[in-house]
Amino acid sequence: MKRRKFIKTAAAITGSAVAVSHLPKPALAQERIEMTIVSSWQRDFPGLGTGAQRFAENVSTASNGKIQITYFAADEKVGAFDVFDAVASGDAQGYHSAEFYAVNKHPGFAYFAAVPFGMTPAEINAWIHFGGGQKLWDELSAEFGLKAMPCGNSGIQWGGWFNKEVNSAEDLRGLRMRIPGLGANFFARLGGTPVSLSGGEVYEQLASGAIDAAEWAGPWNDEALRLHEAAKYYYYPGVHEPGAVTSFGVNASLWGRLAASDRALLTACARAENDTMLAEFNARNGAALARLVDRHGVELREFSDSICDAFAVAAEEVLEETRQHSPLARRIHESFAASRAEVSRYIELNDVNYITKRNARIR
Amino acid sequence: MKRRKFIKTAAAITGSAVAVSHLPKPALAQERIEMTIVSSWQRDFPGLGTGAQRFAENVSTASNGKIQITYFAADEKVGAFDVFDAVASGDAQGYHSAEFYAVNKHPGFAYFAAVPFGMTPAEINAWIHFGGGQKLWDELSAEFGLKAMPCGNSGIQWGGWFNKEVNSAEDLRGLRMRIPGLGANFFARLGGTPVSLSGGEVYEQLASGAIDAAEWAGPWNDEALRLHEAAKYYYYPGVHEPGAVTSFGVNASLWGRLAASDRALLTACARAENDTMLAEFNARNGAALARLVDRHGVELREFSDSICDAFAVAAEEVLEETRQHSPLARRIHESFAASRAEVSRYIELNDVNYITKRNARIR
Repeated sequence: MKRRKFIKTAAAITGSAVAVSHLPKPALAQERIEMTIVSSWQRDFPGLGTGAQRFAENVSTASNGKIQITYFAADEKVGAFDVFDAVASGDAQGYHSAEFYAVNKHPGFAYFAAVPFGMTPAEINAWIHFGGGQKLWDELSAEFGLKAMPCGNSGIQWGGWFNKEVNSAEDLRGLRMRIPGLGANFFARLGGTPVSLSGGEVYEQLASGAIDAAEWAGPWNDEALRLHEAAKYYYYPGVHEPGAVTSFGVNASLWGRLAASDRALLTACARAENDTMLAEFNARNGAALARLVDRHGVELREFSDSICDAFAVAAEEVLEETRQHSPLARRIHESFAASRAEVSRYIELNDVNYITKRNARIR
Repeated sequence: MKRRKFIKTAAAITGSAVAVSHLPKPALAQERIEMTIVSSWQRDFPGLGTGAQRFAENVSTASNGKIQITYFAADEKVGAFDVFDAVASGDAQGYHSAEFYAVNKHPGFAYFAAVPFGMTPAEINAWIHFGGGQKLWDELSAEFGLKAMPCGNSGIQWGGWFNKEVNSAEDLRGLRMRIPGLGANFFARLGGTPVSLSGGEVYEQLASGAIDAAEWAGPWNDEALRLHEAAKYYYYPGVHEPGAVTSFGVNASLWGRLAASDRALLTACARAENDTMLAEFNARNGAALARLVDRHGVELREFSDSICDAFAVAAEEVLEETRQHSPLARRIHESFAASRAEVSRYIELNDVNYITKRNARIR
């Protein structure tokens, strides 16, 4: 029964209270690790929150309790956007978030979540894992005492809900739209007025006409907020935020001290969630889109060529600003852009071509 | 040192020699599991072989040696297509393969790898994990003493290498083409003569004119076989085999006896490889395509609408034959088709639309 008696050591890891037991190494080395994970998502928020929670549970189960995770949703321990500081300081050991919430630390972080006219989930996985992306991400995170990796993807967002049709870039001028983060920067460059609203406020403001448009996520999440009852037109695609990567981050000092087996297990569970979350978004977005259109009579609208041209100019401006920030930001941008050009050419020729040809013939 | 002394029990698992140690349960339950995995890929074969080997290594590392895997590539223990029987009988405990190699047992297996005009990687993940696919797969595998799950994806294949242009379905008649498995069935329905050749034979037969065309995989693998030196035109997309899922299968009786933590760890590592292998194929195919076109002057050709119409008819015939096989085959087909329709509509509107709009503006 001795093995049950885990000696908790107040490990001085950048001021944290990580408890790691120290026992004579048995045949299969065992040191229980207690890890507090803070996330940027509300508890049980469909897709992002449930995905982060599933990841945390998987780690506990797959490690047979060796890595014990205590999970805190947004505001349960720290605020949604304070997770990076909490983990860097050691108040928590890990986070589940999206790197674009850390752009106030360094604008280069956005590339590891989503940037306007950026990469799709398949493309960004290719870049991060096999195109040099992870190495640059590690270099950037290390500057802030962090180590992070992909741990989910929400897929390409939708353009948003509008109460009047927008056919040209002119039509966007003066519009009041709920759109946060980098998207807000992007939208302001197009002459719109970005408004910041929480999920609970969007429906009412849009239905009352206090705002003209609102971007939230995709069919699955948008349907839950009843945005189809507040606006008539649903625009696609969401060029401001294609395929947002969500990430699992760890205190860098702790990461360096973990056994190779623990790092492998955490990485495997994170990579698994990267696969699972996207599958869930695609499945549930597909089903929700069918309900929105076939049952609720939502009118889909495709952004026009002239609007997309304006989007492209705004995206280029946003990325140029980032590139000019620092040598590291420039290197991240160059690597990202080179991989995007190479992989997207392949994906367009093969995947896009295949889907288009097949879909025209299976209905 | 007692803990090092693992008592090997000749567990009578459908005649297998699985060695599982039986010790009093310590705080963190430890029973070392020895697992022989047989695969359908040559050792170090880029993408498929290296992916299967990476998965096996990940399991050993992430479990800290608790699950010890001995990996055999094709023909090192059993033949490439004998892996299902080896695992069902207990001669091995796991396989890494693709389910379409088991169609001689039941044609329904093909749906869990790739069928003509089937699902892309993103779509099939949505179906398997969140659209009822895994449940049907479990039902089918159980009939043969197996439990299997996704563990990699090769992405959408390419149409193949041709020494003359094919513009209509008529042009395919009488062609001798290297194309295996379901693709061969598919090609024969179009009036072609499918030829079965191993990787080592394709280049010579194509260069000498003994065959008129050859399908192998995609740019990365095809370049390694020097097919660009043997034929002039490279056709896309590969509608006969879109996004082949590779799978990890386990002896069903062993799977039932594993602790929840072991099942979770194996599942996490398999799901992780599902993500990683596709990322590698996309990254390396993108780079290889650039070399083939920009350096080697390969001429890309897109299959014409009339050829795709003929492909669609042949695909429907192949799937209709499967559907008529049995009630389970019909249920698998219906579930697959419903998910394909729903998710592909979403993917075409959002992903395809986004990639097309973006690619037109970032070059």
